[in-house]
Amino acid sequence: VTQRYKMTVAYDGTHYAGWQVQPGERTIQSELERAAHQISGEIVRIHCSGRTDSGVHARAQVTHFDLDAPLETRRLARGLNALLDSDIRVTSLTGAAPDFDARRSATGKQYRYFLWDGAVLPPHVRLYRTHVLKRLELEAMQDAAGRLMGRNDFSAFAANPNREVPSTTRTLSQLQVSRKGHEVTIVAESEGFLYKMVRSLAGFLIRVGEGEVSPEAAGAILDSRERTARVPTAPPQGLFLWKVFY
Amino acid sequence: VTQRYKMTVAYDGTHYAGWQVQPGERTIQSELERAAHQISGEIVRIHCSGRTDSGVHARAQVTHFDLDAPLETRRLARGLNALLDSDIRVTSLTGAAPDFDARRSATGKQYRYFLWDGAVLPPHVRLYRTHVLKRLELEAMQDAAGRLMGRNDFSAFAANPNREVPSTTRTLSQLQVSRKGHEVTIVAESEGFLYKMVRSLAGFLIRVGEGEVSPEAAGAILDSRERTARVPTAPPQGLFLWKVFY
Repeated sequence: VTQRYKMTVAYDGTHYAGWQVQPGERTIQSELERAAHQISGEIVRIHCSGRTDSGVHARAQVTHFDLDAPLETRRLARGLNALLDSDIRVTSLTGAAPDFDARRSATGKQYRYFLWDGAVLPPHVRLYRTHVLKRLELEAMQDAAGRLMGRNDFSAFAANPNREVPSTTRTLSQLQVSRKGHEVTIVAESEGFLYKMVRSLAGFLIRVGEGEVSPEAAGAILDSRERTARVPTAPPQGLFLWKVFY
Repeated sequence: VTQRYKMTVAYDGTHYAGWQVQPGERTIQSELERAAHQISGEIVRIHCSGRTDSGVHARAQVTHFDLDAPLETRRLARGLNALLDSDIRVTSLTGAAPDFDARRSATGKQYRYFLWDGAVLPPHVRLYRTHVLKRLELEAMQDAAGRLMGRNDFSAFAANPNREVPSTTRTLSQLQVSRKGHEVTIVAESEGFLYKMVRSLAGFLIRVGEGEVSPEAAGAILDSRERTARVPTAPPQGLFLWKVFY
């Protein structure tokens, strides 16, 4: 009988063309599927909670997949980690109910976006932080974040508006901005995000922190429901898929 | 007139064959000297407080160099950072007295060695931590560390004993072991270290933490003044030159 598995993976997205299998590209999905095939001999399709773009990282991406001939989870996890490069790690692997779906069963997600606003970006965090050259005004960012939270149409904070989604209304249940030294962290939580929504929110909050836009602009931009140059997409390397809720 | 400079640099040693210029190898020194030459047009020799080996990192390596035609320090630092890859950063640059010598003027150094003893090494720290598969016994490591501190002949904890050094006696003024979750940190401070001494101390402390050697062995090993297989050299990627004292 077919066995379904729930697998949590962490990855450094630096050297990958994102999650999804693409011909001729090295992707997280293709690496995981190749390793799962090597161990099981089966053609394994691995489904994630939500695709991450090229260069985006994950602390805890959740996935599911099936095996026709079940394998013991501990051995399977160890085997996968032995076959994968050290920039992708299986952090947890358990059996799951046949109807568990990494994407559809998820009730929410948390992303974190990390900024560095010191003059010099330390080499050891350079792959995981977005460097901002101006000292960010934290209070202005927090003010703007407060105006974006709640149930809103986030069309103005999504890319590819031509992508067909039934609705662009989402509940942004958390959008927190905090500072520790030169590291500024944005924590965003929602039951679901639009395409490039977190990087768009981060891009806008950076402009606010730089003093380029006033926090009050948030409301008008939301109301416009139109993506314009006022909302830049922040670069991928600062973004981590942090947690998926079920 | 010739101007001397004191320059502090941080680097990720992953992609470098250590500090020192070597034919056909990419080294920290060669990258810095190339950038300094590009800016000044002069042949610049950059001297450091102590060479780091291939793969070893630095949070704050201190260097000195001279320019025949002085340049303004802020512009010079910015210019160097613009020319260098992002895994080497100039973090501070000031004029120095003509007799300032990054190595000879140093009164001491602090190194930190970072271990990870969780089952899975998180991808985002993989280049900066040494993975230990067994849960480390912190108290045993602290006990052993206490026995190694102080003024001792550290021949048994140095590599290349054929290197001619006038004396192998050093004062290890600090050797602290602490834990935060799965991260175990060793902080070592001395007025001067022998070749590969920190990695040897770390290698020994790891064995103690794994329960392979008792802390009490430290005294006998010191007394033997002989480097043997009892003291392995811990891998380079866990080691950071943290601070140089003047």
